[in-house]
Amino acid sequence: MTTLTDTLAAIVGPAHVLTGADLDSYEQDWRGRVRGRALCVVRPASADEVARVVRACAAAGTSLVPQGGNTGLVAGSTPDDTGTQVVLSLRRMNAVRSIDPQNMTFTVEAGCILQTLQQVADEAGFLFPLSLGAEGSCTIGGNLATNAGGTQVLRYGNARELCLGLEVVTAQGELWDGLSGLRKDNTGYDLRDLFIGSEGTLGIITAATLKLHPRPAAQLTAWVALASLEDATALLGLAHQHLAAGLTGFEVMNQFALGLVDRHYPQLRVPMWREHAWCVLIELSDNESEDHARAQFERLLETAFEQGLAADAIVAESLKQAHDLWHIRESITLAQAEEGVNVKHDISIPVSRIPDFVREADAALAAGVPGVRFVNFGHLGDGNLHYNIQAPADGDARAFVAAHESTISTIVYDTVSRFGGSISAEHGVGELKREKLPHHKSPVALQLMQAIKQALDPQQLLNPGRVLARTP
Amino acid sequence: MTTLTDTLAAIVGPAHVLTGADLDSYEQDWRGRVRGRALCVVRPASADEVARVVRACAAAGTSLVPQGGNTGLVAGSTPDDTGTQVVLSLRRMNAVRSIDPQNMTFTVEAGCILQTLQQVADEAGFLFPLSLGAEGSCTIGGNLATNAGGTQVLRYGNARELCLGLEVVTAQGELWDGLSGLRKDNTGYDLRDLFIGSEGTLGIITAATLKLHPRPAAQLTAWVALASLEDATALLGLAHQHLAAGLTGFEVMNQFALGLVDRHYPQLRVPMWREHAWCVLIELSDNESEDHARAQFERLLETAFEQGLAADAIVAESLKQAHDLWHIRESITLAQAEEGVNVKHDISIPVSRIPDFVREADAALAAGVPGVRFVNFGHLGDGNLHYNIQAPADGDARAFVAAHESTISTIVYDTVSRFGGSISAEHGVGELKREKLPHHKSPVALQLMQAIKQALDPQQLLNPGRVLARTP
Repeated sequence: MTTLTDTLAAIVGPAHVLTGADLDSYEQDWRGRVRGRALCVVRPASADEVARVVRACAAAGTSLVPQGGNTGLVAGSTPDDTGTQVVLSLRRMNAVRSIDPQNMTFTVEAGCILQTLQQVADEAGFLFPLSLGAEGSCTIGGNLATNAGGTQVLRYGNARELCLGLEVVTAQGELWDGLSGLRKDNTGYDLRDLFIGSEGTLGIITAATLKLHPRPAAQLTAWVALASLEDATALLGLAHQHLAAGLTGFEVMNQFALGLVDRHYPQLRVPMWREHAWCVLIELSDNESEDHARAQFERLLETAFEQGLAADAIVAESLKQAHDLWHIRESITLAQAEEGVNVKHDISIPVSRIPDFVREADAALAAGVPGVRFVNFGHLGDGNLHYNIQAPADGDARAFVAAHESTISTIVYDTVSRFGGSISAEHGVGELKREKLPHHKSPVALQLMQAIKQALDPQQLLNPGRVLARTP
Repeated sequence: MTTLTDTLAAIVGPAHVLTGADLDSYEQDWRGRVRGRALCVVRPASADEVARVVRACAAAGTSLVPQGGNTGLVAGSTPDDTGTQVVLSLRRMNAVRSIDPQNMTFTVEAGCILQTLQQVADEAGFLFPLSLGAEGSCTIGGNLATNAGGTQVLRYGNARELCLGLEVVTAQGELWDGLSGLRKDNTGYDLRDLFIGSEGTLGIITAATLKLHPRPAAQLTAWVALASLEDATALLGLAHQHLAAGLTGFEVMNQFALGLVDRHYPQLRVPMWREHAWCVLIELSDNESEDHARAQFERLLETAFEQGLAADAIVAESLKQAHDLWHIRESITLAQAEEGVNVKHDISIPVSRIPDFVREADAALAAGVPGVRFVNFGHLGDGNLHYNIQAPADGDARAFVAAHESTISTIVYDTVSRFGGSISAEHGVGELKREKLPHHKSPVALQLMQAIKQALDPQQLLNPGRVLARTP
């Protein structure tokens, strides 16, 4: 009798069907929260092979878990624990199929590493602006499947806004060639955006046509200290007015988060944090020159001081200094880990409501779980906070988190919902947030989502149990 | 026995159910191509009333045609000729529910007139950039249902890119409150973008939360004459590099189109058209000052002359002169109509392929339908051409078009498909392009669309026969 593994080996070649000990890294999620067990990992080399793999799995009634770089934060790309699922790794599909400079697009396969694509774009004289912590190992297919965000969303949008067309293998194992370099196409339903962000539950993205942007002539970074989050949101409004599309980043960090960086990485010499409750990091991209960018920043900061919004500020004098400032921002996550285990949230709120939200959430947590410490930072320009909770300074952090994680997240997410926010701004739902979703999303939206899942994947072959619960 | 009309009158009030002669303007499409016949027009005042109307129609098995300003160009918002459909006019739902300056959003009802929203945004100190010919009478609900484009897409995107959240009544008469001022929200499938552009066939948009942009400090317009379409696409690339996000418009016009404007509106004094095959109109928005914008334009045009891309150029010296230049561009459609009936196409092609496309389409038409004249203009920056065909100068234009329209469109659309383009860039599918769609769209995409329609509207209650054929 021919097993499914044999059939898959016949499609992709025996060397590209992994079993046994080779499965280890594919079965473990990035954060180490979930370990699954797969029947095998299959590594197709083309969209046609992907389609044949899906048809073979459909015939066998075996479900598939698409996987790119496996760097997701919500356990959306690892198998369940039944040992029956096939992990479909897109990593071998890593060709840049074409670059079209005049159309300002390139067409790339799902398994391309994000950082590679940034480099390819740069060498062609353009900017591909998607940028996030895992860029050295995440794949563009995964970025699109999860609608990744990152540090340049304020100016260039999420992964969704950077994508013009997709190639997708459906749950029926058919290939949809929706690759397109078109900026306008109103011939029917927006299938592209339906697949983007569906976390591999509606189809398997095998390639994409992506937008390229002009490479800025200069980039400049400022660090501003402020007294309150109200001042930070007001400064953001001022920055929009002064810098318009030049404003590419607006990151906020609270005193406690910067204090952790200072404690665990004193060599980074965090500026201004001791005297001020908040700092923001502003990034300006300029299409003219560094001098022009500097003059723009000076005018902005002058107005900010006049209006009493800024308490102190520096503009990086060199690229190195700019990198150092960004490095501080990016070290918060590591400093948190050094400090001990913690409870993470990736939430969004309308920008105007963020100060009130933080005040209420802080108070509710302080009352409900005394002693917690607030690591609060994120992409204020997008209304996206990484509102993380650290255990009290003394005592067993691990035990504290185990005992209180659920209470903490419930308080945070309930407050998010009251402020019209989202419990997953950029990380997605996956496995880890699936059960929370029904408490925070409208029943009508969930019904519509279930109807779409049922219509496109009636056999529940594609990443079942992610985003939505399996239906009986 | 209570009729459906009685039931609807009980929901919205008798004054808001129209019948008889009052139906006239609701039954006729904007271009005068299609006249339908409705059972009645119902004009609800709230999303709740819309939901109750849909439930009443569902109970009666009567289908609905949502209608906003009824300015669409593909007959998507008029009833069929059976006299059994209910036209659901959203025009009474015209409140601006809220403005959130700090979040840079406003929440508005579907029946708001686009121009009104531009004014509301302006009064709040912002720009709402959606702008198109029908803005004085089209509604934002219709703009979203058709994913409208217009003249500022190059910088700000289509209607889709300006929308953060929707309120929608489903085919089951349930209300989905997806209004959201969030720029990041990865909690499940992208229902918003599925409804946007679905032309009222999947749900009825009753309100939306839309992005506001900073109002530019200055806007400047240049008019450049060029020898070829190759030079125009090269100049577009240069403009992207020099102006980056300041580049808000890049319109192209061929000599024949401008000659028609000159012939029928000589008072507009079209510049440069006699000596040059093509002209482009470039719009620059600047967040600093008019002086800065002018310096930017000067640098761009200097480089263009150095590279031999521009043959002649002027930068408007005043707002009045800028308006006059735009007025010429906007008069092409009227000049065409003065010249006689013609065959219109709203197509998109990757920017890089436009010169070859035009060469091949021109040649194929000249060979297939001798004597035709080419009115070619459009949003080159978006790859969107209004590639229109005028009957030969002598003879009966009406008879010519009647005899050759089908052949002409077939040649154009077949060439569009060979170049990876779209047969409807910004106008949608509606009734007029529905039968063409299967010849130019992948069968897999059409299957996916049918599956989604069946899942969300199994009774075929919402605008049946638009976009997709009715299923038996």
